[in-house]
Amino acid sequence: MKELDAVLDRIDRDLDQSIERLFSFLKIQSISTDPAYKSQCQAAAEFVAADLKSIGFATEVRATEGHPIVVGKASNGAVNPASKGKAPHVLFYGHYDVQPVDPLELWTSPPFEPRIDTLPGGRKIIVARGACDDKGQAMTFVEACRAYKAVTGSLPLPITMMIEGEEECGSKNLFPFVRDNADEFKLDLALVCDTGMWNAETPSITTSLRGLVYEEVKLTCADRDLHSGLFGGAAQNPIRVLSKILAAIHDDQGRVTIPGFYDGVPELPPDIKADLAGLNLTAEQFLGQVGLKVPAGEKDRMLIEQITTRPTAEINGIVGGYTGEGAKTVLPGKASAKVSFRLVGDQDPNKIRDAFRAFVKARLPVDCTVEFANFADSRALALDFHNPVVDKARAALADEWGKKAVTVGAGGSIPIVGDFKSVLGMDSLMVGFALDDDRVHSPNEKFDLKCFHKGTRSWARILAALSA
Amino acid sequence: MKELDAVLDRIDRDLDQSIERLFSFLKIQSISTDPAYKSQCQAAAEFVAADLKSIGFATEVRATEGHPIVVGKASNGAVNPASKGKAPHVLFYGHYDVQPVDPLELWTSPPFEPRIDTLPGGRKIIVARGACDDKGQAMTFVEACRAYKAVTGSLPLPITMMIEGEEECGSKNLFPFVRDNADEFKLDLALVCDTGMWNAETPSITTSLRGLVYEEVKLTCADRDLHSGLFGGAAQNPIRVLSKILAAIHDDQGRVTIPGFYDGVPELPPDIKADLAGLNLTAEQFLGQVGLKVPAGEKDRMLIEQITTRPTAEINGIVGGYTGEGAKTVLPGKASAKVSFRLVGDQDPNKIRDAFRAFVKARLPVDCTVEFANFADSRALALDFHNPVVDKARAALADEWGKKAVTVGAGGSIPIVGDFKSVLGMDSLMVGFALDDDRVHSPNEKFDLKCFHKGTRSWARILAALSA
Repeated sequence: MKELDAVLDRIDRDLDQSIERLFSFLKIQSISTDPAYKSQCQAAAEFVAADLKSIGFATEVRATEGHPIVVGKASNGAVNPASKGKAPHVLFYGHYDVQPVDPLELWTSPPFEPRIDTLPGGRKIIVARGACDDKGQAMTFVEACRAYKAVTGSLPLPITMMIEGEEECGSKNLFPFVRDNADEFKLDLALVCDTGMWNAETPSITTSLRGLVYEEVKLTCADRDLHSGLFGGAAQNPIRVLSKILAAIHDDQGRVTIPGFYDGVPELPPDIKADLAGLNLTAEQFLGQVGLKVPAGEKDRMLIEQITTRPTAEINGIVGGYTGEGAKTVLPGKASAKVSFRLVGDQDPNKIRDAFRAFVKARLPVDCTVEFANFADSRALALDFHNPVVDKARAALADEWGKKAVTVGAGGSIPIVGDFKSVLGMDSLMVGFALDDDRVHSPNEKFDLKCFHKGTRSWARILAALSA
Repeated sequence: MKELDAVLDRIDRDLDQSIERLFSFLKIQSISTDPAYKSQCQAAAEFVAADLKSIGFATEVRATEGHPIVVGKASNGAVNPASKGKAPHVLFYGHYDVQPVDPLELWTSPPFEPRIDTLPGGRKIIVARGACDDKGQAMTFVEACRAYKAVTGSLPLPITMMIEGEEECGSKNLFPFVRDNADEFKLDLALVCDTGMWNAETPSITTSLRGLVYEEVKLTCADRDLHSGLFGGAAQNPIRVLSKILAAIHDDQGRVTIPGFYDGVPELPPDIKADLAGLNLTAEQFLGQVGLKVPAGEKDRMLIEQITTRPTAEINGIVGGYTGEGAKTVLPGKASAKVSFRLVGDQDPNKIRDAFRAFVKARLPVDCTVEFANFADSRALALDFHNPVVDKARAALADEWGKKAVTVGAGGSIPIVGDFKSVLGMDSLMVGFALDDDRVHSPNEKFDLKCFHKGTRSWARILAALSA
């Protein structure tokens, strides 16, 4: 392990320079969803390409219908020949784009002028938009590669980089890009650095992501809006119909009542369930941060199950009738809602969608018609708990953090990870160093300096473990 | 009746000019509920004041906390001295404000560019926001006065005009105005032209009005909008809570479940019930015009009861979470709805409001708070069926339309009519010429030219009858 020690030592000595490089990256205002920042997104892509080139990658900034995708390839001459035949060829995925910064007035310093701050307890943090999501996290991997290159003259295993610029607005050009170039990216394993730690001391590997079905329901009763004084009491009211349908989705125990909804939902093995219970996630800890106290999901499930390993139904939006200031005595002709389902295990998105639509139709009175629209249907994704890659990464993280790494499920989804599996047949190892208080997507986003530094060291250890 | 014949003849000859005056009035965008149209409401008030002044009224545009109230007085010199001592001093009430025009894209011509259209069967209609409610209807009375003034040089009886600008947003400044100036407006009888005909051939006098309680319910769960992937399944969802509450308002029989809701609701006397049954209002006739088939109210009541003599609960609007195009995986912090109740008989608005609020609070889970706003609370109102004024008006209407006038209850409410009774001790004679297909409050509002013309003639006859 002499080589790895030298690499880790190099990371430590190079920390100040690595922060400077991250700051240069953070200063680029690469807000992908706002067309006004198009040239800044291009600049961020070129920054990444140049940086990767400087450490031995053959890089390209590849155009899409939207913002470009940076592809970097290190193989043959750039890779330690000793790894040949035994190390996997890995695809690292990250993104250079960031969320909008509004409301700007809530930032205590300008979002694109990164700075180091020290919290009352002494924690040092990097404050800027993208400090964590995903510039800071992506750079932990790049800096690990840089240290290897500096110490050994090459990378420890073949690596292809894919750094996109539309993650914060739906990755919609990445999907066809991956599909159209499947041969190029169908490698052995994907590495993703866009998730979080369990807490500031406990490293974590995300081994499952929930799937998503997202439906819109539009009800129509009368062919126009009516005066509630004239028609009230006689004309069918679509908001009333919609409320009855939405109210019926959950029973008093918080379970979803749609027939067949739980088909394919696995029960956790007892040891995994015990591990989750051991994490002792309290409502105060998790819900307290947003002003809530009591878990609202299935009453017979632990909070951590509700948010990671159990399927859910949520109403994401509803609108109908008069919604302005004051009063309008209208009896509307239409009402609509957006309803989404997080899926786990083997739940089939098509069956869930069909079951939901049947559930709605069964509750429609005469004089009410429905239209549906579908905006997402992705399966849940899960790594085997005893995948050898997970074991290697877990050991490497334990070495770095001095604490056993936990494997957890994520409640949200990283859609491209689903395509890595379904289109490229490739598993993804998701290791990240974000903390719950990083204010990702919010004003004053930050990344702990310790997470940046030890995150870089963690990747060096994982690369060593994978190449061994 | 020679004088009346001359007046009616004058109305016929002046029809084109009266339409032009109405069009000028309709062009003013006096949407009272939206602060952006404040100056247009002022302009509408000034238009009315100037017009009344031109036919002999002493007019004032009287300021309120909101939009002004136009008061016009014709007495002494402006009134035919022959009426002295025998004719009542009447208060005519109308409003110059109109409803918002959204959804604008459903209008086939701009809502404030009035035009005459001809329907396939040859009916001519005036199309514009306010064409019927209430600019067109109010002008039937003004035009009748104008014809009297032109023919006889004076009005047939003492008239005070009160044209307000906040009827469409709750008349909230009119109530204190009437209370504070009770001496000025405590006259013999109020005349109101804001109701409808039984059908296009059958004139109608509205002898009862439902009351109105209008509430807004705002629910708050988390202190911010959340990511449904992170918090879905654990954080309380205010749309889900709101749906459960709204769904519980009606039972399967269409009855309102709020405790005490039916207190004070009278059963109709058998003869009145038989009269209503005799009108034989079918669902096809009433609901067919808006694309519906089946009455959605109390299952054990006739349709005509559901819309006139029974109380109702309606959801007028709802909004929460993401309502734009496509998908956003938000779990909202807030959701709100507007809910209104039509009252009959002795239902107490304060008790209904309190019972509704208690009903909502009883269904709030932990982690959900509620705020209420009240936009209306008026009692129901009923005239005696054998009031002599009603008999006179019924005869005058029969003369004009050649068909017996029916007395009916109105489903909507004109809140100030309740105060005319309770504060001023004054009955209101409600005669109007709206038709069921006038699309009041909806896109493409219209008023039949025949209703405008014969409505004006009807008022001339009623004024003659009252002054005799």
